[in-house]
Amino acid sequence: MPSIKCLSIQVDPRDNVAVVVNAGGLPAGSVLDDGTELVEQIPQGHKVALVDIAQDAPVLRYGEVIGFARKGIARGHWINEEMLRMPEPPALDDLPLATRKAVEREPLEGYTFAGYRNADGSVGTRNILGISTSVQCVAGVTDHVVGRIKRELLLRYPNVDDVVALNHGYGCGVAINAPAAIVPIRTLQNLARNPNFGGEVMVIGLGCEKLRPQRLVAPPSLPGQETAQTVHSSILSLQDERFSGFNAMVESIMELAQTHLEKLNRRTRESCPAADLVVGMQCGGSDALSGLTANPAVGFAADLIVRAGGSVIFSEVTEVRDAIHLLTPRVIDEETGRALLLEMAWYDDYLSRGQADRSANTTPGNKQGGLANIVEKALGSIIKSGSSPIVDVIGPGERLRRKGLTFAATPASDFICGTLQLAAGMNMHLFSTGRGTPYGLAMVPVIKVASNSRLAGQWFDLIDVDAGRIATGDASIAEVGWEIFRLILDAASGRTLVAAERLGLRNDLVLFNPAPVT
Amino acid sequence: MPSIKCLSIQVDPRDNVAVVVNAGGLPAGSVLDDGTELVEQIPQGHKVALVDIAQDAPVLRYGEVIGFARKGIARGHWINEEMLRMPEPPALDDLPLATRKAVEREPLEGYTFAGYRNADGSVGTRNILGISTSVQCVAGVTDHVVGRIKRELLLRYPNVDDVVALNHGYGCGVAINAPAAIVPIRTLQNLARNPNFGGEVMVIGLGCEKLRPQRLVAPPSLPGQETAQTVHSSILSLQDERFSGFNAMVESIMELAQTHLEKLNRRTRESCPAADLVVGMQCGGSDALSGLTANPAVGFAADLIVRAGGSVIFSEVTEVRDAIHLLTPRVIDEETGRALLLEMAWYDDYLSRGQADRSANTTPGNKQGGLANIVEKALGSIIKSGSSPIVDVIGPGERLRRKGLTFAATPASDFICGTLQLAAGMNMHLFSTGRGTPYGLAMVPVIKVASNSRLAGQWFDLIDVDAGRIATGDASIAEVGWEIFRLILDAASGRTLVAAERLGLRNDLVLFNPAPVT
Repeated sequence: MPSIKCLSIQVDPRDNVAVVVNAGGLPAGSVLDDGTELVEQIPQGHKVALVDIAQDAPVLRYGEVIGFARKGIARGHWINEEMLRMPEPPALDDLPLATRKAVEREPLEGYTFAGYRNADGSVGTRNILGISTSVQCVAGVTDHVVGRIKRELLLRYPNVDDVVALNHGYGCGVAINAPAAIVPIRTLQNLARNPNFGGEVMVIGLGCEKLRPQRLVAPPSLPGQETAQTVHSSILSLQDERFSGFNAMVESIMELAQTHLEKLNRRTRESCPAADLVVGMQCGGSDALSGLTANPAVGFAADLIVRAGGSVIFSEVTEVRDAIHLLTPRVIDEETGRALLLEMAWYDDYLSRGQADRSANTTPGNKQGGLANIVEKALGSIIKSGSSPIVDVIGPGERLRRKGLTFAATPASDFICGTLQLAAGMNMHLFSTGRGTPYGLAMVPVIKVASNSRLAGQWFDLIDVDAGRIATGDASIAEVGWEIFRLILDAASGRTLVAAERLGLRNDLVLFNPAPVT
Repeated sequence: MPSIKCLSIQVDPRDNVAVVVNAGGLPAGSVLDDGTELVEQIPQGHKVALVDIAQDAPVLRYGEVIGFARKGIARGHWINEEMLRMPEPPALDDLPLATRKAVEREPLEGYTFAGYRNADGSVGTRNILGISTSVQCVAGVTDHVVGRIKRELLLRYPNVDDVVALNHGYGCGVAINAPAAIVPIRTLQNLARNPNFGGEVMVIGLGCEKLRPQRLVAPPSLPGQETAQTVHSSILSLQDERFSGFNAMVESIMELAQTHLEKLNRRTRESCPAADLVVGMQCGGSDALSGLTANPAVGFAADLIVRAGGSVIFSEVTEVRDAIHLLTPRVIDEETGRALLLEMAWYDDYLSRGQADRSANTTPGNKQGGLANIVEKALGSIIKSGSSPIVDVIGPGERLRRKGLTFAATPASDFICGTLQLAAGMNMHLFSTGRGTPYGLAMVPVIKVASNSRLAGQWFDLIDVDAGRIATGDASIAEVGWEIFRLILDAASGRTLVAAERLGLRNDLVLFNPAPVT
């Protein structure tokens, strides 16, 4: 018998599996606390049967059915993804809506960060000149200009943190009147209104593109959203006849940039309550520990933000779809519940038109990390949302309307979800990962939380928080949750630069375009 | 009566419209050569009725019906897009296949360029280290590495022109088993095999992504394509356990890059026949002169390349769809004709699933430029293909199989079409434009041809060839066609840098992904 300490976690007393926590996995012969003896080597994050499971019997984790045994599985055996038949996703027509009474929790007062307050009431965590674009065609020019602004202008505006071109693959060669085109269009409109751009919107267009640059600064059509009066916009199109050649274009853009830089440079940080935080939650490269360590800690932090009066966004339709029955009771009213179900149904249909379903979500990395299927992944994923009531549901690319916890329907793709959460108006991003990713965004700080200490140690300069300490008993979920909350306040204030900022790592904006291209 | 010289073009004797050519348009009262007197001001590139056209009567340009008059149009009136009812696209089930006997044309011999010959027989026009990526997640790291290679390494390898990261929005969060996922996957596989990368493929992956990095260097599955033995590939995944932190990843990538740079640096230019050219044809920001000046000149050059034994690719399904009856007679055999029709039908269906059709193609710029609808645009667009037989049809993202003129089915979106033509293996790109675009690609030189002299003059440093001289009678189609052909040889040889290269303008790679994202 090996003498190492056997670490494993059974989440719910109903579960007939536990997850191995030891960094190197556990060898055959290891004995768990409940007396289960491993009959084979089981890797970290993978499941072991705690009882004999008969053929076709349910396998339970988080107290929920994550699959049915294809064959009988004896106690102590490794349960990998091949051994489970996946359940059907919950039907959408008979779910309890708004049935769970919200737990009254004490408001959290006195927590502040130093932010840039905007005219529309939103608060920036960075002070960035955003150069929005109406079409990919102009990307060569905007990249050139951004390079020149960084080299020639930025030093003269010490209060401005950065200049970012919002390059993207949309704008021309697209079916702009197809119903689903509203998604990329409103995403671009709302990206330019992210609080970190301070209401200064500069749009570079070409002139002949389908997406008119004017549309990017049009007032939003949805009631309850701020009007465009709080946004100072300027538009410049390269085909404008006053431009004689490339240098004339560039000089004009540089001049325009200076007028915006001067205004941005007058912004200064002031003390803002934590209620002004808008934190986007995401996970990527998840493993089986994600749902036990990083996501519960992120969820704990989400609850703290909501208690402080702030806004939390969670997303990723295919990663909530199989756990939707756990979310519909949490919505604040039936209307919000129906909005949530509509987003699920829209995505089911979208995937089915492409001859796919939500099972296309899981990745090879998820499976190597011990996640058998999308059901198990979804159960671990929704924990990021904490336990607050869901006060609103917004569609992909829409802007946040309410404080509290909002579900923003987005794909689960890290970079697409991130782009859409930026459009929703997030000013801080929390990202949990088990396998590891260098993910970063140019527009807001991304705090990366590792689900296991192996990753946190190996990627010491890429990971901001080690939630693996929860699995080893070295920290509680609450402790790591508070640590994350305090780091959010520090990073939002610019006192702390997150790993991705220190290393200058930033992913591209990737739009969600469910409409065809032409 | 104004005393200016009235320039207009009637393309085909059957046409009942002519196009105004004068740079400022023509005022009311102007009299054309055939005696038609303009009854109103007509802008450049726009159409004038040469006879009285009755309500519902066909309006003809290029000898083809581009629409039906919604109301009667008197001679001398401006015909704008509002006045035409668009015809249905040609039905696909009854078109003549391979009925036009190819005109025998003398082979063009003795034309050469200085290129980099590759082991698989292809020839590069630039010598570039390509860093392919399997997923967007790694883009922050590859961008960082490309910056360091440029600053620290490239000077030591004087024969290497550049280093380019193939960042893209694919790889994770995608329905990788959906039938249409084959399109982005083979595009990425074939992009890495572009001749300008010299058979040295370096792939940076993350480790947990759906698109396994190994798939990017897998041998192609289609018969008749080269095997992967001619490609030297190396793969590095950031999640590899040997990397302790960011700097370790970067150092390993830098080391790997050096081994590839050393091999690339041994490449030298040698004299290659024009038969080794693979020229992708595209138009963007078209106006009504595009079909009269730039595209005919590009088509003339296309014929020269084919006569020299080279390869020409033309594309853009929605811009050939309405002129498909003019292409099906030109295919080399019925099988190729059926392949062409299948691509049209696939795209009809793809658009229709998104509640759009090919009429979504035309842009505001097209209409301002005098193109009434997609029918008129398509008739002007296919002229780029010249008059050679169509020897092959390939799907989006596929690699070229034959010399001669190939139709590569792609969207018409400039940057998506360009990305797919790079995957097809082009080593030179010809791009015609009426409204103007700063379009450029990192992987191959893009020659930009203006359809009108106003644009060529105004954008003197962005445009390579002024085909507007054809409209004013200052040059013939053949003269400009030969000029383009010679410029292709000079640019391919690196003797001439094209405008986009001189200015460092490069658009992003944008993949065509008709499958859903998750």
